[in-house]
This record gives sequence, structure tokens and C-alpha cells, in this order.
Amino acid sequence: MNAPADLAQTTATKPISRYPVPELVDLPDDLRERILAVQEKAGFVPNVFLALAHRPAEFRAFFAYHDALMDKETGSLTKADREMIVTATSARNRCLYCVVAHGALVRIYSKQPLLADQVAVNHAKADLPARQKAMLDFAMKVCTASDEVGEGDYATLHAHGFDDEDIWDIAAITAFFGLSNRIANVTGMRPNDEFYLMGRVPRQK
Amino acid sequence: MNAPADLAQTTATKPISRYPVPELVDLPDDLRERILAVQEKAGFVPNVFLALAHRPAEFRAFFAYHDALMDKETGSLTKADREMIVTATSARNRCLYCVVAHGALVRIYSKQPLLADQVAVNHAKADLPARQKAMLDFAMKVCTASDEVGEGDYATLHAHGFDDEDIWDIAAITAFFGLSNRIANVTGMRPNDEFYLMGRVPRQK
Amino acid sequence: MNAPADLAQTTATKPISRYPVPELVDLPDDLRERILAVQEKAGFVPNVFLALAHRPAEFRAFFAYHDALMDKETGSLTKADREMIVTATSARNRCLYCVVAHGALVRIYSKQPLLADQVAVNHAKADLPARQKAMLDFAMKVCTASDEVGEGDYATLHAHGFDDEDIWDIAAITAFFGLSNRIANVTGMRPNDEFYLMGRVPRQK
Amino acid sequence: MNAPADLAQTTATKPISRYPVPELVDLPDDLRERILAVQEKAGFVPNVFLALAHRPAEFRAFFAYHDALMDKETGSLTKADREMIVTATSARNRCLYCVVAHGALVRIYSKQPLLADQVAVNHAKADLPARQKAMLDFAMKVCTASDEVGEGDYATLHAHGFDDEDIWDIAAITAFFGLSNRIANVTGMRPNDEFYLMGRVPRQK
Amino acid sequence: MNAPADLAQTTATKPISRYPVPELVDLPDDLRERILAVQEKAGFVPNVFLALAHRPAEFRAFFAYHDALMDKETGSLTKADREMIVTATSARNRCLYCVVAHGALVRIYSKQPLLADQVAVNHAKADLPARQKAMLDFAMKVCTASDEVGEGDYATLHAHGFDDEDIWDIAAITAFFGLSNRIANVTGMRPNDEFYLMGRVPRQK
Amino acid sequence: MNAPADLAQTTATKPISRYPVPELVDLPDDLRERILAVQEKAGFVPNVFLALAHRPAEFRAFFAYHDALMDKETGSLTKADREMIVTATSARNRCLYCVVAHGALVRIYSKQPLLADQVAVNHAKADLPARQKAMLDFAMKVCTASDEVGEGDYATLHAHGFDDEDIWDIAAITAFFGLSNRIANVTGMRPNDEFYLMGRVPRQK
Repeated sequence: MNAPADLAQTTATKPISRYPVPELVDLPDDLRERILAVQEKAGFVPNVFLALAHRPAEFRAFFAYHDALMDKETGSLTKADREMIVTATSARNRCLYCVVAHGALVRIYSKQPLLADQVAVNHAKADLPARQKAMLDFAMKVCTASDEVGEGDYATLHAHGFDDEDIWDIAAITAFFGLSNRIANVTGMRPNDEFYLMGRVPRQK
Repeated sequence: MNAPADLAQTTATKPISRYPVPELVDLPDDLRERILAVQEKAGFVPNVFLALAHRPAEFRAFFAYHDALMDKETGSLTKADREMIVTATSARNRCLYCVVAHGALVRIYSKQPLLADQVAVNHAKADLPARQKAMLDFAMKVCTASDEVGEGDYATLHAHGFDDEDIWDIAAITAFFGLSNRIANVTGMRPNDEFYLMGRVPRQK
Repeated sequence: MNAPADLAQTTATKPISRYPVPELVDLPDDLRERILAVQEKAGFVPNVFLALAHRPAEFRAFFAYHDALMDKETGSLTKADREMIVTATSARNRCLYCVVAHGALVRIYSKQPLLADQVAVNHAKADLPARQKAMLDFAMKVCTASDEVGEGDYATLHAHGFDDEDIWDIAAITAFFGLSNRIANVTGMRPNDEFYLMGRVPRQK
Repeated sequence: MNAPADLAQTTATKPISRYPVPELVDLPDDLRERILAVQEKAGFVPNVFLALAHRPAEFRAFFAYHDALMDKETGSLTKADREMIVTATSARNRCLYCVVAHGALVRIYSKQPLLADQVAVNHAKADLPARQKAMLDFAMKVCTASDEVGEGDYATLHAHGFDDEDIWDIAAITAFFGLSNRIANVTGMRPNDEFYLMGRVPRQK
Repeated sequence: MNAPADLAQTTATKPISRYPVPELVDLPDDLRERILAVQEKAGFVPNVFLALAHRPAEFRAFFAYHDALMDKETGSLTKADREMIVTATSARNRCLYCVVAHGALVRIYSKQPLLADQVAVNHAKADLPARQKAMLDFAMKVCTASDEVGEGDYATLHAHGFDDEDIWDIAAITAFFGLSNRIANVTGMRPNDEFYLMGRVPRQK
Repeated sequence: MNAPADLAQTTATKPISRYPVPELVDLPDDLRERILAVQEKAGFVPNVFLALAHRPAEFRAFFAYHDALMDKETGSLTKADREMIVTATSARNRCLYCVVAHGALVRIYSKQPLLADQVAVNHAKADLPARQKAMLDFAMKVCTASDEVGEGDYATLHAHGFDDEDIWDIAAITAFFGLSNRIANVTGMRPNDEFYLMGRVPRQK
């Protein structure tokens, strides 16, 4: 059995973060439980959990916000849509952690193994219908020029079938991962090696 | 007595948000209690509480994050320092709500009635010592080019007496309000009229 | 009675300009008279008069240009319109002096105490009709990309009721204060403390 | 004899300005005299005189400012230096009138027929000593980012032998022609054909 | 046996290029031979060969230039270095074809399966020594601001052990793929599906 | 008789390139022949031939590409059109060599002695019909934002009578000279003095 602490050691041959990464045993119970749960599910502990555990209060708020946006069960955005928003805007912010980790999730949710790389480089050239391109156009505007967002943007998205709540979702996901990108860039958060290959090849049986 | 719902009505002659603003009676208890508490303290309900109440799960995560960063009791950043970071970077993102609301807090915490306007326009020209200017230089870099942050930035800030935890604080405050700016810009969040004058004139006795 | 020289002394505890500021007695008569007249009217001497008095020939040309544009009695631009153009474009150029000084004039002429701060941060979110927003959109384009101005811009403004002479006015005001912004930024021209509060509260009787 | 009005007619086969250009006979005396004087000296009337004559008060202020900066007899900037500042920054603002007209003056004052084109495209590649390149570096910063000018810029220029008054000159010339560029761009001011060839070939005897 | 024409058909279910893609049989002999040779070596025909075959003269010049820079046997740049330059600068130009195709080559030549994604997102965060980061810093400057390249850049690269000929190589590779990026972006050149997975997993035996 | 080597000596009083410039006698035959041919035709050797001769393989590919695009005999672009594309985009890239050398060719092919300077500063103000302005608008977009080129751009150009092959030509010329600009900027390639005056005055008989 791989204990989480061991895993952290292993992947930490290159540092996970510029800041200290706590040992699992030293963490508050709720953080440790969340980390063990994600390890159980993913097979490894994504480094964002370990890096942010340095600040438990921020860890809790960060993942509460994350879950409110990414696990939300209403609205028309699919899980793949949400992860594409993260991947496209994180590439614009040049955040290695988020492009690699959320690119993996784009591949898994979309079942399109090429899509994440396309979205990260240039969503206009991705294998996507017009609706998703409009969604990503808007996300990029929120990312780079939110001060210029206006009724014209709402009208464009309405024409593609997004309602106001969907638009809030697109904007809030972009805004939240803009936060994440800045923290990852400043702390030098390192994506786990496991993410790079996830969803690229059919699972071994 | 001014009931919060009344206040909301009054200030809502111009809309607080492009999105529906719930009635206090319809809110979950914890949101209502937080809103009543802030009203008790401030004398009015800042519109960010009402606008975000449209999404209770996001409201909770937002204010948990806010409190973790802005009410944090360790580190060398003063409350005025934190509010200056918010004001300078929000001006860069052209977010009316945050410049006006947090500019008020800059004035109150710094007891310098001119400082917020200076920081919002050009922190290099503000009545600030070199330490605070370096802090704001770094915040602006995190705001606009976090991908270029590196060890040189850490060294510059260390030379001004900031330690690594302070630097995390500066970056995280910038990142969090970058999120806030984007949501406020997209939802058209309106600052309360009360903020504009706060801290500009000596209190009436 | 406060002699102007005294006033200059008082406000000069923090330097008005990186360059020498002449004594009133040493100035050419026409400059001294203009300065005394503005003091009589405003109750203090705006620092731009003292800072530019270092160069009398430029002082004369500067205020002649200023008056030609800002005291012009023809055309459809109100005094508040003109000051809003100054405030919005000076904020874009991050000129502390002009945002603070002309923001005060926006408040006074418009009698809207919140308007200057709104225009300085993001005119698209200001309490303004579409006509004024179109005016400021154009001013911002002249400020940042005058090389791209073309007939399409004229047509947009015509549709809002501006004629060609109004458009010249908008462009020339933007251009003139772009000059002013650059000089103020390079000389570190300091806005008088008095400007910050002007027009925010009802006058004392 | 070529009367100025005739000249205006001739060059006006392509419009000088998007705005009405007055007849010389209709102008106030001082404007007409200035125009006749420049025609006498140059052999033709530069279109900026005719285009700005549409607004006599602005014409007077414009040329008073121009003369204060460009005919100033103190300081270490040569006439060629001043015209290079105009040419380099006007190229950055993509102002056809000023690049063509002041490029001609660069050639004439410097007696280097290649210099204006070099400065307009990329002053770093021009046949200039380090002093002039530092001067133009600073002018370009005033042109594009005056909010970032600080003591470091003063120190750099001092090291090249410029004093504070020279630095004011560089900044003020840049600022004034930034005004000129914006007005020329918006009015579509057309450079006289004569400018293009001036100073390129030895004078006929 | 897979005939090249068949392969082209297969991958062309989504168009390779916005422009007509010729049949192999219709190509000049030298183009067909080059294409058959690359297919023999790679196991498939990279779409850039088919897309550019629409213009045989440009095809020949393009690949002659490519080979002169990428197959050059002198200098200190490794094949992995050259492909990293392509990948980093193509990501900056948001060219899907080049990031995907040359990212594959980065993985193959460097034998580091994570390196291409790191370089594409943010080379400053890649698992690279300082020498390679300086190389990519310079390539990015050539890509985005070649007009500002000067002796300081040469000195920085010399300090990392690059000589003038290496610097020409870095610049020329960046410049050539800047050409390639623009053509690929305008023609909508589609990367072959095969590239995405190349070099990510150990070869099957 | 002026031998080419002599010419090189003469113009090399200021260096042609930061890199070594080979003697004609040391060059491979094909390079020497091309250089002698161009000297025969132009009366002098444009420095790009001498500077690139430092790298014979790149020289060959460069001029093969050049000829494929600039001597192409099909399509609706005139020689003047092609040279205007080069001049406008090279000015945007601030490449002295290409603006000066190809500006000369604009003058010669268009027989409009003012056109090159107009196009270099601001093509929107040039004496050109709408068709050529649309062509240059597109070239500028390919130069600065090729990732945003899409079907809308094709439609705009079709409306001006350009077909898809013309559009490839515009894009490829822009892309090729973007390469040329970067190499010239990095190597400090110096335009020959002869170019500056070419096409400005009627030929001597």
C-alpha cells in the first residue's frame, strides 16, 4: 500500500511548491480526510492539495469555492465545458499547474484525447462546435478584459443558448482559476507527473 | 430602525447587480446572519453581500476566503497594506466596486484621507514609503504578469523586510481580488453610495 | 489674509514638483496676476500654476490652450462633459494630478458627487446616459489609439447627436490633457490636498 | 507670385484636413501674418497652419507652445535633437503629418539625409551616439508610459550629460507633439508633398 | 501497405488545410519523393507537407530553410534545444500545428516526456537548466520584440556559453517558425492526430 | 569599373551586419553569381545579400522563398501591392532594413514617390483605394495576431475582390518578411544608403 505521505515524498524529488509542504500527519483532520479521499479516487494526491495545505484556512475556502463551481449540478455547462474554460484561461495566464492538471480532466470528461492540447494552444482551432467556441471566447474576455464585458457579450452567449446563470458560471470559473493561476505561478506549484498522460490512451484492462 | 431589506430597497433604485438580488428573508440563516452582522457594524449592507447572496455556496466560499486573507492576524502586512493591495490592483482591473469599497477601507485603516485616491491612480506617486511601494509593485506584477514572477521578485521584497509568508499574503490578496474584480465587472456590481465619502472627513461627534 | 506665497509654503511641505517652484514675487506680472485671480476664485492656488510657472513661456501657452478648450462657449459639450473627458483619459494615463484636480471639477459641474470616481475607474459603469458613454469611448480611443480613428467613429458620435465640431472638442481636450498628464507624471506634480474633498459634501453655509 | 491662398488651393486637391480650411483673407490678422511669414521662409505653407486656422484660439496657443519648446535658446538640446524627438515619438503614435514634416526638419538641421528615416523606424538602429539614443529612449517612455517615469530615468539621462532642464525639454516636446499627433490623426491632417523630399538631396544652386 | 494518398484521405476526415490539398500523384517528383521519404521514416505524412504542397515553389523553399536550420550539424544547440525554441515561440503565436508537431519532437529528442508541455505553457517553470531558460528567454524576445534586441542580449547569452553563431541559430529558428506559425494559422493547418501521443509513452517492443 | 567586393568595402565603413560579411571571392559560385546579377541590375549590392551570405544554405532558401512570393506571376497582387505589404508590416516590426529597402521598391513600382512613407507610418492615411487598405489591414493582422485570423477576414477580403490565393499571397508575404525583419533586427542589418533616395526624384537623363 502506498501511504499518502510516501507519495508526497516520491513526487517531491522536484519540489511541489516554493513554500513548505506539510506532512499529512500534521494537518487538521478535515484537510487530511479530503486529501485521503482524493488519493483514494485519483490514485495519487494532486499537488495543489499539498501546496495549499500550508495554509489550512485558505485551503478550505479554495476547495469550497472550487466545489461550488465545478461540482455544481445545475446549468447547461458540462464537466468538460468547465474544464475547457479552466484550461483555455490558464494557458492565457501561463499557469503550468492548471493547464496540465485540468487538461487531463478535459480529456477524461470529453473523452476526446486531443481536445485539451487544442484548447490550451488556440481554442479557435479546436474540434469544437460554435457554442463551445463562443463560451471560450467569453471566458478569454473575462480573463483578460473583464472591464469591457457588457450587454453585447450577454446577447452573443444567449444566441448560443447560454442563459444568464450559465454566463455567471463561465465568468466565475474563469475568475476562480485566475486566482488559482496566480497562486500557482507565484508558489511555483508543480503539476504531478501523472496528469500529463491521463486520458491520452485507452485504460489498461 | 432600518431593516436590512429596506436598506436594500433604498440603494436598489439603481440596480445592485445585473442578477437577481434575493430578499433577506429568503436567504439561508448563515447568510442572513452574516449580512445582519455587517449591517450592525457598518451601518449599511455592502452590496457585495447582497449580490453574491444570489449564489449561497459561492457566497460562503468567497467570504471564507476573504476572511482568511483579510482578517489574518499573523504576518507583517497591516490592514491598510492589505486594502491598498486591493485598491491598486482593482484599479488596474477597472473594477468600480472594489476600488470604491476598498478605497474607503484604505482611508479608514490608514487614517490618510488622500491615500486611496493616490493608490488607485498611481501608487508610485502616493504618499508612501519605499516598502509599501515595493509591495504594490509586486502586487501589480501578480495582477498583470504572474507568469513572470520569479526569485528576483522574492529578493526585492526580502530587501524591504517582507518574508516569504508576507509575499504569499500579497500574492493571495491580489489573486483573490482579481477573482472579485472579474465577478463584479461581469455582474455590474454597484458600490454603495456610502463608500465614496467614508474616511474622507472627520467623524461627527 | 493668506498670501499666495504662504499657501504655496503650506502645501509645499510635500514638494509640489520635482522642479523648482518660483516665488510669486519673482514671477512676470501676467503670471502673478493669473495666479492671484485663480486663488481669489478657488480659495487656493492649484499646484499646476505654481509648477508650470517654472517655465513662463510654457505657462502662458498651456493656459491659453486650456482656456481655448475648456472655457469655449460654443458646441454641445457641457463643462461637466469636458471635465469627464479629462478625468477618464487622465486615469488611463495614470496621472494623479489631473485625476484628482479634474475629478473635483466633474463633481462640481455635474453636481453628482459620485461621478468622478466612477469615470476614473470605468466610465462604462458610471451613472451616465449612452451619449456620454459614447463620448468617453471616443476620448479613450483618441487617448490610446488615435491612429485608428476613422469615419466609423465619426458616424457613431453623429448618431449620438455630436457634430464634427463637438468631435474636434473631444479629441482636442483629450490631446491637450495627454500633454498635461505627461508633464505632470514626469515632474511629479502633486495635486493640492483641497481637491480631494471638493464637491463631495454640500457646501457649509 | 504665388499668393498663399493659391498655394492652399493647389495642395488641397487632396484635402488638407477633414475639417473646413479657411481662406487666408478670412483669417484674423495675426494668423494671416504668421502664415505669410512661414510661407516667405519655407516657400510654402505647411498644412498644419491651415488646418489649425479653423480654430484661431487653439492656433495661437498651439504655436505659442511650439515656439516655447522648439525655438527655446537655452539648454543642451540642438534643433536636430528636438526634431528627432518629434519624429521618433510621432512614428510611435503613427502620425503621418508629424513624421513627414518633422522628419524633413531632422534632415535639414542634422545635415544627415538618412537620419529621419532611421529614427522613424527604430532609433536604436540609427546613426547616433549613445547620448542621443538615451534621449530618444526616454522620449519613447514619456510617449508610451509616462506613469512609470521615475528617478532612475533621471539618473540615466544625467549620466549622458543631460541636466534636469534638458529632461523637462525632452518630456515637454514629447508631450506637446503627442497632442499634435492626436489632433492630426483625428483631423486627417495631410502633410504637404514638399516635405517628403526636403533635405534628402543637396540644394540646387 | 498504406499508400500516402490513403493516409491523406484518412486524416482528412477533418480538413488538413483551408486550401486545396493536392493528390500525391499530381505533385512534382521532388515533392512526392520528399513526402514518401518522410512517410517512410515517420510512419505517416505530417500535414505540413501536404498543406504546403499546394504551392510547390514555396514548399521547396520552406523545407530548404527548415533543413538549413534544423538539420544543421554545427553549433552547440542540440536537436532538443531547437525543437524547444519552436515549441515555446509557437505557443506564444498560438499556432496549434507547430506546438503539437514540434512538441512531439521535443519529447522524442529530449527523452523527457513532460518537457514539451512545460515549455509550451511557461518555459520558466520547465525542468530545464539556466542555460536553456536563457535560450528560450531570448527566443521569446526575438518572437515578440526583435526590435529591442541589442548587445545586452548577446552578453547574457555569451555568459551562458552560447557564441554568436548559436545566437544566430536561436534567432533564425524563431524567425523561421514565426513564418510557419503565421501560415499555419491563416490556412488552418491541422496537426496530425499521431503527434499528440508521440514520445509520451515508452515504445512498444 | 566598381567590383562588387569594392562596393562592399565602401558601404562597410559602417558595418553591414553584426556578423562577418564574406568576401565575394570566398563565396560559393551560385551565391556570387546571384550577387553579381543583382549588382548588374541595381547598380549596387543590397546588403541583405552580403549579410545572409554568411550562411550560404540559409541564403539559398531565403532567396528561393523570396522569389516564390515576390516574383510570382499569378494572382491579382501587383508588385507595388507586394512591396506595400512588406513596408507596412516591417514598420510594425520596426525593421530598418526592410522599411528602407522595400519602401524604395514601393516608390519604384507604384511610381508614387510619397506612398512608401505613408504606408510605413500609417497605411490608413495613405493615398490608396479601399481595396489596398483592406489588403494592408489584413497583412497587419497576420503580422500581429495571426491566431485570430478567421473566416470573417476571408469574407472581408473577398468583398474587395481578393480570392483565396491572393489571401495566401498576402499572408505568406507578411510571414516571410516577419522572418526577414527578425533576422535583420538581430543581426543589425544596415540598409544601403542608396535605397533612401530611390524613386523619390525623376531619373537623371
